[in-house]
Amino acid sequence: MLYIIGLGLADEQDISVKGLEIVRKADRVYLEAYTAVLLVPKEQLEAYYGRYVILADREMVESQSDEILKDADTKDVAFLVVGDPFSATTHTDLALRCRQNDPPIPTRSIPNASILTAVGATGLSLYNFGQTVSMVFFTETWKPSSFYDRIAENASLGFHTLMLLDIKVKEPNLQALARGKIVYEKPRFMTVAKCASQMLEAEEERKQGLCGKEALAVGVARLGSEEQQIVAGTLEELSAADLGRPLHSLVLCGKKMHDMEWEYVRGFAVDQKRFDEVWQRNYSGK
Amino acid sequence: MLYIIGLGLADEQDISVKGLEIVRKADRVYLEAYTAVLLVPKEQLEAYYGRYVILADREMVESQSDEILKDADTKDVAFLVVGDPFSATTHTDLALRCRQNDPPIPTRSIPNASILTAVGATGLSLYNFGQTVSMVFFTETWKPSSFYDRIAENASLGFHTLMLLDIKVKEPNLQALARGKIVYEKPRFMTVAKCASQMLEAEEERKQGLCGKEALAVGVARLGSEEQQIVAGTLEELSAADLGRPLHSLVLCGKKMHDMEWEYVRGFAVDQKRFDEVWQRNYSGK
Repeated sequence: MLYIIGLGLADEQDISVKGLEIVRKADRVYLEAYTAVLLVPKEQLEAYYGRYVILADREMVESQSDEILKDADTKDVAFLVVGDPFSATTHTDLALRCRQNDPPIPTRSIPNASILTAVGATGLSLYNFGQTVSMVFFTETWKPSSFYDRIAENASLGFHTLMLLDIKVKEPNLQALARGKIVYEKPRFMTVAKCASQMLEAEEERKQGLCGKEALAVGVARLGSEEQQIVAGTLEELSAADLGRPLHSLVLCGKKMHDMEWEYVRGFAVDQKRFDEVWQRNYSGK
Repeated sequence: MLYIIGLGLADEQDISVKGLEIVRKADRVYLEAYTAVLLVPKEQLEAYYGRYVILADREMVESQSDEILKDADTKDVAFLVVGDPFSATTHTDLALRCRQNDPPIPTRSIPNASILTAVGATGLSLYNFGQTVSMVFFTETWKPSSFYDRIAENASLGFHTLMLLDIKVKEPNLQALARGKIVYEKPRFMTVAKCASQMLEAEEERKQGLCGKEALAVGVARLGSEEQQIVAGTLEELSAADLGRPLHSLVLCGKKMHDMEWEYVRGFAVDQKRFDEVWQRNYSGK
């Protein structure tokens, strides 16, 4: 059996009791470590679970999954995923490969918290979100603005947009690669401030008024942990906000935002007076 | 401190290790039992947690929250919520009351699995969902079709729609009430079949071609439990499907559905040939 087990968001104790029991009994334990990361190192999981944990990077999961699935028709393999098991399509792929295996490998998923719902801690109603959107790091020569089209779709219906921010782990250094050497870059995690500034940059280009300086948004960091931080404000304010260490996400508020949502969110405002003023002028009932 | 603790979806072992430790130490433990239910009775939770659990019905949470929050500025109160803490606006309300209390009551939420993401087990990409929609039981005289407008919004962008199905717990019998007596009806939980048939009924009325007999959908039951069941088909097929005991939910597929999603979902089809035929004709690349 392949168990795809959600770990939740923060640390080793966010696993469910059910998930923990499976991990403790499984023949092999993998940790998918490239679509998201916990706030604690692998060693802390190993100490708590009492198990050796094999790090599964993108290459292993996407190209060498035979290794992960080896003997899984007769043995129990635990595949640990930060957040919820189906938060990334790559996990559905793995389940599909199990189904298509000869003989088929039975799978079971153990759900857990995901940023997609934990973001409800902001006070924004989960019923008012449209599609989730990814934001990648811009480079000098590559500033993909497809995220802007998705925001535009959501905005056309007044929905909030959850932006999941880029994570770069185990990225090869391109200069070294050109010399035939594999050297990995230091992991990079996009901050709320970086996301907000990239949104402002895209707005300058596209000019549809979707994510300009006065657009209201909520930044979140380390949700579900004791050092969880939530900051609300205009994109201009958030582009200067420091929410500390990763992981960060950002929600762009939709115009459908209800008074009750506003009442809760304003408690997190960088500048409550300014927040209320922009809300009254551009959002409330608009 | 008020701890709002997600219990996950199925049974007493879906709580996180962190949540369980808080429950075991808290001064009082409440279970919110009207927006969703676990698949096991309260007594099973009590036995596992080793704690007496106070059932909190709608009246207690919405009108008598003082009782829940009593002394919570100095004592630890655990408020257990099926799914994720912020899956229902009523929980945000409670957190808001804590903030507005004099003195303010600190709160902390412990995230957990929610149907909003567990539905990823169908193979449908969580990135392609629009707003979540509730479906209530139609009566002879009241068939609200506002859900149809929301589906129409999602469909205009090709999004999937997750439909959360009505739960009636502790509903007073109206005839008895007219005689001045309070008698509670037996709990009722909407099935996938009932939801599909109500959607077909609304389509007959509204005729925008959004949820007719050939609309593709996926029904899910008891997600996250060992008896999890997933069934894909046309709404006509699902209106005759029996997915067993509660809880059920339904996803109406959007036209943006990708080949990769189809490949996974078709494995759950009532009638795979028919599923593929409708997919090719009305969905794939449309």
